[in-house]
Amino acid sequence: MVQTGPGVLEPATFPRPVLGDDDALLRVEACGICGTDADTFSGEVPLAYPVIPGHEPVGRIEAIGSRAAARWQLAVGDRVVAQADFGCGRCRGCLDGLACLVAPGNHGFVPVGRPPALWGGYAEVMYLAPGSVPHRIASHVAPRVAALTNALGAGFAWAVAAPGLRYGQSVAVLGPGQRGLACVIAARQAGAAAVFVTGLGSRDAHKLALAADLGADLAVDVEVDDPVARVLAATGGVGADVVVDTTPHATQPVLDAVRMARPGGTVVLAGLKGPGGVPGFPTDEVAVRTLTVRGVRAVDHQSFRLAVRLVESGRVPLERLHTHHFPLDRAAEAVRTLTDPAAGAIAVTIEP
Amino acid sequence: MVQTGPGVLEPATFPRPVLGDDDALLRVEACGICGTDADTFSGEVPLAYPVIPGHEPVGRIEAIGSRAAARWQLAVGDRVVAQADFGCGRCRGCLDGLACLVAPGNHGFVPVGRPPALWGGYAEVMYLAPGSVPHRIASHVAPRVAALTNALGAGFAWAVAAPGLRYGQSVAVLGPGQRGLACVIAARQAGAAAVFVTGLGSRDAHKLALAADLGADLAVDVEVDDPVARVLAATGGVGADVVVDTTPHATQPVLDAVRMARPGGTVVLAGLKGPGGVPGFPTDEVAVRTLTVRGVRAVDHQSFRLAVRLVESGRVPLERLHTHHFPLDRAAEAVRTLTDPAAGAIAVTIEP
Amino acid sequence: MVQTGPGVLEPATFPRPVLGDDDALLRVEACGICGTDADTFSGEVPLAYPVIPGHEPVGRIEAIGSRAAARWQLAVGDRVVAQADFGCGRCRGCLDGLACLVAPGNHGFVPVGRPPALWGGYAEVMYLAPGSVPHRIASHVAPRVAALTNALGAGFAWAVAAPGLRYGQSVAVLGPGQRGLACVIAARQAGAAAVFVTGLGSRDAHKLALAADLGADLAVDVEVDDPVARVLAATGGVGADVVVDTTPHATQPVLDAVRMARPGGTVVLAGLKGPGGVPGFPTDEVAVRTLTVRGVRAVDHQSFRLAVRLVESGRVPLERLHTHHFPLDRAAEAVRTLTDPAAGAIAVTIEP
Amino acid sequence: MVQTGPGVLEPATFPRPVLGDDDALLRVEACGICGTDADTFSGEVPLAYPVIPGHEPVGRIEAIGSRAAARWQLAVGDRVVAQADFGCGRCRGCLDGLACLVAPGNHGFVPVGRPPALWGGYAEVMYLAPGSVPHRIASHVAPRVAALTNALGAGFAWAVAAPGLRYGQSVAVLGPGQRGLACVIAARQAGAAAVFVTGLGSRDAHKLALAADLGADLAVDVEVDDPVARVLAATGGVGADVVVDTTPHATQPVLDAVRMARPGGTVVLAGLKGPGGVPGFPTDEVAVRTLTVRGVRAVDHQSFRLAVRLVESGRVPLERLHTHHFPLDRAAEAVRTLTDPAAGAIAVTIEP
Repeated sequence: MVQTGPGVLEPATFPRPVLGDDDALLRVEACGICGTDADTFSGEVPLAYPVIPGHEPVGRIEAIGSRAAARWQLAVGDRVVAQADFGCGRCRGCLDGLACLVAPGNHGFVPVGRPPALWGGYAEVMYLAPGSVPHRIASHVAPRVAALTNALGAGFAWAVAAPGLRYGQSVAVLGPGQRGLACVIAARQAGAAAVFVTGLGSRDAHKLALAADLGADLAVDVEVDDPVARVLAATGGVGADVVVDTTPHATQPVLDAVRMARPGGTVVLAGLKGPGGVPGFPTDEVAVRTLTVRGVRAVDHQSFRLAVRLVESGRVPLERLHTHHFPLDRAAEAVRTLTDPAAGAIAVTIEP
Repeated sequence: MVQTGPGVLEPATFPRPVLGDDDALLRVEACGICGTDADTFSGEVPLAYPVIPGHEPVGRIEAIGSRAAARWQLAVGDRVVAQADFGCGRCRGCLDGLACLVAPGNHGFVPVGRPPALWGGYAEVMYLAPGSVPHRIASHVAPRVAALTNALGAGFAWAVAAPGLRYGQSVAVLGPGQRGLACVIAARQAGAAAVFVTGLGSRDAHKLALAADLGADLAVDVEVDDPVARVLAATGGVGADVVVDTTPHATQPVLDAVRMARPGGTVVLAGLKGPGGVPGFPTDEVAVRTLTVRGVRAVDHQSFRLAVRLVESGRVPLERLHTHHFPLDRAAEAVRTLTDPAAGAIAVTIEP
Repeated sequence: MVQTGPGVLEPATFPRPVLGDDDALLRVEACGICGTDADTFSGEVPLAYPVIPGHEPVGRIEAIGSRAAARWQLAVGDRVVAQADFGCGRCRGCLDGLACLVAPGNHGFVPVGRPPALWGGYAEVMYLAPGSVPHRIASHVAPRVAALTNALGAGFAWAVAAPGLRYGQSVAVLGPGQRGLACVIAARQAGAAAVFVTGLGSRDAHKLALAADLGADLAVDVEVDDPVARVLAATGGVGADVVVDTTPHATQPVLDAVRMARPGGTVVLAGLKGPGGVPGFPTDEVAVRTLTVRGVRAVDHQSFRLAVRLVESGRVPLERLHTHHFPLDRAAEAVRTLTDPAAGAIAVTIEP
Repeated sequence: MVQTGPGVLEPATFPRPVLGDDDALLRVEACGICGTDADTFSGEVPLAYPVIPGHEPVGRIEAIGSRAAARWQLAVGDRVVAQADFGCGRCRGCLDGLACLVAPGNHGFVPVGRPPALWGGYAEVMYLAPGSVPHRIASHVAPRVAALTNALGAGFAWAVAAPGLRYGQSVAVLGPGQRGLACVIAARQAGAAAVFVTGLGSRDAHKLALAADLGADLAVDVEVDDPVARVLAATGGVGADVVVDTTPHATQPVLDAVRMARPGGTVVLAGLKGPGGVPGFPTDEVAVRTLTVRGVRAVDHQSFRLAVRLVESGRVPLERLHTHHFPLDRAAEAVRTLTDPAAGAIAVTIEP
């Protein structure tokens, strides 16, 4: 499925890529969808159309070059999930942890005009470039659960790695979407002493309930309760050690996050708000209470691997996060379902 | 001098305190003034009047208890500078690096109603509580230079310790006041590869010139040049590794700071802006460019000690930061001078 | 009970201390014993006799000064466990995390000649100095379980805090004594993906079995198997992320630790070996495989508090670590029991 | 020059490599020699002969593939110094900071049997593999000074990055060879408050004198003075914050390092000692004094870049470290000169 403009996804076929020594082809079993898919589909985040979207693929290796097989320790037939981003790994950008200078990219964002076209996961076959990082994942994991790996990796990256979460700390997660729930799961796994989650009762009630099932100690409906007051009360007036804002668009949660963090605590900013920024951002509170505010975006390699392991372990009922799946030719409907409040979607997959 | 309300400083005398084993009396030689003194004097930051202000004292030990002498390794006659804050050191607040639960306080902020009244440095004699942390400083240092230790400690705390500044990194300091200049000095000492400073040409021209003399590679007049563009140009388009905003009240520097930091860089928020916060704070830039924003307020013990050592070394012409001094009975004039644009003050002392 | 020389513990009575504002008296319910107690009892680690030993006390506050009550947030009747070490908290030694310059000490190590004599936990009443750090612990916890807090705190300090253990890492614990088992528990709680433990089958079989019950994935009898080979096999040939040596006296475990750590991994040295050191220490392996070796001794405040919380939670069957208890007048027998291989002791308490 | 066995270096010629898109050819101007060259030449560290040694090359790009030009931001004619190690950058080994699984290697260690043979710097032309990391260095730097970049990078890696050296700390460097002197330079640049260096007066007197010229505060001849006593005396009895042992073979410096480090300090192990390890390694001192011991080997990317910048700056008289240079056909003599006590060599280059 090729996106040719805002809101337009059309079927297309492309020639099968000729592989070299360093790349591979993935036979896609399922592709997860996240909020970024919704933003690029709507055109809010513009792409260099035409593009095959999809950056959360799971599938099996259909063909692979010899050096790629050695690099990734993979063979034809292996089940994998692939990280979204790729790069050369050796330029100054990559070595410094910044953008690759040579072959930067994210699956699902590269235009089809760049050979071999098949850069996205809304497809039967996807190309894995030399800089891709596919991770083997066990065959017993259902494809639509495996497709949650990227979201779960964000949970580890945002709620654990970025704030340096330590055993015994408390974590508040603002927003109970798939990534918010992933933060709840990751924080719980990493030994958080208390996990709080917030959401809008009118549309997120089932997500808040699921969060509680997944281990949240407190699920606050912000339409009914003041989340800052609830988190302060639950922490003896001190505030949470870590607060992660995963909400898209809304700016009040950023203000809440600063106010519910304990002195010396950390606020992680993950949800994008769009142009305009946050009004009345209380830098004085950040200063006087010596807070650390960290912006996050991608999933680091280590967090992705922790997610793979947790998915494989079966310890957490991740299948409960999956709510909808669609065939490839209904990809547009899949994306619209994710953001339709009436649909109650959490995680949605496209399955060729 | 006792502050009895906003803008009112009156002379008063108090009985000489009776010391115990754990405290001491300081014969004040000079007391530095910082922006916080101006904010408390004006009433913008209210105090529990009446209060003897002054939290940057230098002086000689006039009397000392036996355990205090052991604790501080001090004897009568020793020259010291004292940290502003004190605490018991052993309650859960102190042990966690938060506010002391038992005897919290800052010199210059405790009301005279709390015995023995002499809590501030605008005085001939100041009380050093059991939780105070005085540091010995060599007699060859002039009192008005020694009084800069607190400001210089803020330079180490804000430009070096808080952002974890490493040798070879670049630092942009927004605001060329005494603490901004202290950040320039500290960054230079700690091996920054490049130091940039910004200010308002119409009132800070002499401070920007002094910054250049103290080692700044670039001094930007923001009334003439775009500081973001200048810092990006000076860093090959990448941005500064560390940006420290020391400006009071102004909110544009916070937005500039986010935009002139390199991807993955750190913004330190030190200047207080007052109620209302910062409009249009670009959390999306913080997220997408994975910035770390750290609030800072006090001077940690280690940074204070580095400042003592640098003051003693004579390596930096710190006396050039000192512009005005006043006798004790003109304390109000001293504070007003610090904030009067026409006065061109950088560092001001009150000297009994 | 007063130790007057190597191997000699005698009953004695002392006058009840007169308290000031900053100290307290503890009515001892139980006092734990660790390897250090055995070493000081035997004289291998000499004391400034006469001394009342005992640094792992649990009891109730019998009397308390007013400032101490505020500092510790405690009242008469509260159940507490006390950290072993104390200090003034405000001298340069304390502020730098080194030894206190003023009132250094450890409960159980201060001679009775220093007033008010009652410095140790082998007693009916123990003195809590101004620098002591008692932690409230819930009344529902049995004293002999509460007495395990110090050991469990060592588990968090050595297996989690010192190596910076992260969720998903693997940990090998050498030695299955009370502190080794505490490391197993702490590592498991903090989210270790795999925990290995080693011991001597001929005397530690029941401890190895208990370790497995407490969550160890692998318990190696070093008299039968090569622990290095077993750990390498269990980690796909890579080695453990963290290795903690808790064994006393034996030097082979240090060499094993270096060899079973993964490249870039961390070895924590906790067990004391006595004079002579370790022969053939492979610094080249440390260098070539870029290992970090960290020495540890005391229990930091944060780790102690994590232990208190875990003890209170009842989540772990800690009572299984407790094997023996003795009345106060059989204190010498208690200490001998801890180190008698035939006794099979893990944790032993003295209970007045 | 091809090394065909222990102590044998023979001239040979190879066909000019055919480049692909990702590699390059370097016209060698000079190649530095370090202790590892001596150990491989002698056979103490065996190689998979035949091998062209040399891992510290400086030269100009003679030919370069298009992707390599983009990756390295280099063009034909550019002057570069190359890091010793290379890897694919994207396999699990590289991503985890461990050995590359696909194309591991170090220039100067790959046998000529692996095409295109020209893997080492003892040559007129050297091959830069896709995983190599060449850094541009300014043309005004003399080749034999540029050849010091690798050694200087080790100074930053070992004395600054590995111990996390902070401004104001004290550093003791054991051994005044080229890497020891590089540690002195790096520590000084990074703001160390005091730098100490040790050596053998009978053969290192000129190196100790040079260390003093380069900024060492204290240069101890261990044949005359006890280095532990001298460092303790120079630090008020506390010990050095950081101790770096760069000495080859000798084991006494490891014991000294542990004893001259302050409580809580860091010992960096860089010098290799050969089989047998260190006798009587005092793990109890490491534990009781809570030391951190870190093994180091290679030069990280960031430290290498700091070295490039310092070399280019001309701030330090690095040319004083260079003592000998030899043409390519006298490579064996060059290596022997480095280790001949009578030669007094510090840094030696081979220059085709």
